[in-house]
Amino acid sequence: MLSIITLTTDFGLRDPYVAEMKAVILDICPSVIIVDITHEIANFNIRMGSYVLASATSYFPNGSIHVAVVDPGVGTPRQPIIIKTKRGYFVGPDNGLLILASEKQGITEIRQITNTKLMLPQVSNTFHGRDLFAPAAAHLANDVRITEFGPTIQNVAKPEFTSVARSNTEVIGEILHIDGFGNIITNISSEEIPFPITKDSYCVGINKYRLKTKIANTYGENKPHQPVALFGSHGYFEIAINQGNAAKTFKAKTGDRIKIAKN
Amino acid sequence: MLSIITLTTDFGLRDPYVAEMKAVILDICPSVIIVDITHEIANFNIRMGSYVLASATSYFPNGSIHVAVVDPGVGTPRQPIIIKTKRGYFVGPDNGLLILASEKQGITEIRQITNTKLMLPQVSNTFHGRDLFAPAAAHLANDVRITEFGPTIQNVAKPEFTSVARSNTEVIGEILHIDGFGNIITNISSEEIPFPITKDSYCVGINKYRLKTKIANTYGENKPHQPVALFGSHGYFEIAINQGNAAKTFKAKTGDRIKIAKN
Amino acid sequence: MLSIITLTTDFGLRDPYVAEMKAVILDICPSVIIVDITHEIANFNIRMGSYVLASATSYFPNGSIHVAVVDPGVGTPRQPIIIKTKRGYFVGPDNGLLILASEKQGITEIRQITNTKLMLPQVSNTFHGRDLFAPAAAHLANDVRITEFGPTIQNVAKPEFTSVARSNTEVIGEILHIDGFGNIITNISSEEIPFPITKDSYCVGINKYRLKTKIANTYGENKPHQPVALFGSHGYFEIAINQGNAAKTFKAKTGDRIKIAKN
Repeated sequence: MLSIITLTTDFGLRDPYVAEMKAVILDICPSVIIVDITHEIANFNIRMGSYVLASATSYFPNGSIHVAVVDPGVGTPRQPIIIKTKRGYFVGPDNGLLILASEKQGITEIRQITNTKLMLPQVSNTFHGRDLFAPAAAHLANDVRITEFGPTIQNVAKPEFTSVARSNTEVIGEILHIDGFGNIITNISSEEIPFPITKDSYCVGINKYRLKTKIANTYGENKPHQPVALFGSHGYFEIAINQGNAAKTFKAKTGDRIKIAKN
Repeated sequence: MLSIITLTTDFGLRDPYVAEMKAVILDICPSVIIVDITHEIANFNIRMGSYVLASATSYFPNGSIHVAVVDPGVGTPRQPIIIKTKRGYFVGPDNGLLILASEKQGITEIRQITNTKLMLPQVSNTFHGRDLFAPAAAHLANDVRITEFGPTIQNVAKPEFTSVARSNTEVIGEILHIDGFGNIITNISSEEIPFPITKDSYCVGINKYRLKTKIANTYGENKPHQPVALFGSHGYFEIAINQGNAAKTFKAKTGDRIKIAKN
Repeated sequence: MLSIITLTTDFGLRDPYVAEMKAVILDICPSVIIVDITHEIANFNIRMGSYVLASATSYFPNGSIHVAVVDPGVGTPRQPIIIKTKRGYFVGPDNGLLILASEKQGITEIRQITNTKLMLPQVSNTFHGRDLFAPAAAHLANDVRITEFGPTIQNVAKPEFTSVARSNTEVIGEILHIDGFGNIITNISSEEIPFPITKDSYCVGINKYRLKTKIANTYGENKPHQPVALFGSHGYFEIAINQGNAAKTFKAKTGDRIKIAKN
């Protein structure tokens, strides 16, 4: 069985950093399949990293090992961790980045990475992705047991952006991600809305804009350049503009508050 | 024999979309080699997608399976199709995107994809790349026969941008692609020009500019920052500026008309 | 044993060029593992290409084959070469691009590529990456001996940017690279500084700015938005701003002079 290691970082693709991680992985485990999820997470944006990681990883086969590095605290006392889930492993910093994805799969065990024999011989203070997380993933792919890496821990940093406030008449969430088409993806899933969603039953507030838009099944369902609301391919409430850019139109950015209210 | 699946989309590399397609492919066919052609096709730009797909795919080994998704009509009645050629397979929407590349290889059969058993269990209305085209390609790589996917069809959407107008003294084409160096690539190949092309025998009109430029064999043949015309590495007429950016200099963009006239 | 071929170019990821190189490689050597180092070298920037190549390649396993193409002189008389080192092979143009990386590994032999049987049947004047360097790398991966490719040569083009000027009280180098976080990476390594480096012992001049900054072990060691100096993960002197962008702040760009002076 071939193992899969995925990579999600904010390193970009211009610099040697991602290739160095791959080199380290292939040196330890030459037969692994490496798949890039993305390296274009906005610098230090743990919210965006969490969303992208949670979205993509749910489609990978059982046993996949997911490395994620969005790590403003590299070199400070934040811990490097491995989270084992019912479907695979997540490797990265203990700063909340891995939680949304690993809770979706069901966490079974969390360990600190403290065993220096499973790191590169020299661990720099600035690049744990290469020196510590990449080797850990490659050793996992080589069937090194999770118990070898370090002690179990119970408490990990939890991100705040995963919770939605709700009453009987409104739901307040936030924008998790603006995708490359300008689609606005929120953290609100359909089961969190306590009233029916049809064209005339609700309205959406984003910044100063108030939309009473059709709830659609697909981007192409409304006229070109008209907004559509829909539950996107990951089940989250999303605002799009058919063949246009919703984020630019509504001046929306990651982290902005979004309100869905019953009419 | 290892199979190759290539991917060409306008999804960009920031979002989880491409990784989700790869995850679905590897889940169905773990031994396949996935090669990205590009994910930076300009959003919804079927012309650019066609050119890039036709260029790159001609170099891949026989038997390769090419998935392309530039799909403004996702979720509308446009059909998902597989085109079998003398050299491989093309999988994507029936909107013209696949035609230039597959005609270059010689089309032998076209089928609609209607068999839901060869799709993901849930097909979203917004992401056929992941839910429908990626599984189709992976099943082809697993040697599922094309007859299993759905009925044959005869007529597919044809793009308009592949035809060139010509008389004895001039040829009118259009700009297919601006590459990352700013080179202007047209849809005019050398055999379509009915008069000899040498330095003094012709001139080129792009927008308001009129060039009488050297016809060169290579970008470096003229002085730095001077324009050169040449038949590029895919055989199309191309305007470049040695160590400069021709598209910016001549304010050229994809789709602009270009005229080559005999002097 | 699986072979690894790495690719480093200034082709970007929008165009078909990189995929065509991969197609040619897989057609000649289907079992090779291809790893992208980067394709986002700034156009024609041999200095940046050299730095990125030298950084990343040192982490790859012995026997890896590294193709690099930043090639403003493609089609002119500059030679295509293969450099054999103690740890692998470098394939690319003789314009200085390969030297920093291959000297780091120890050069054992340099050959011109002249054998047309080991190139594509038609070699264009504009795209040696696909027609000449990619096939050469794939044939090396197939264990074709280096002696088959062409004659040995002794003298190759040397880049000027690798040398540092020094006296007892100051060291003058230059900026090799600005990374995606805006970190300023110089060509000065710690062994080249002849005086101790502590907070009060030295100052740094970049353009009109003069910094007396803490020498740190990690980006996060100083307060957010404060500059830190450190020897980065490749051992070069680096200026960063904790959670900020040093290059923007100090208006620094590749090639700018940098001076470290004793106080």
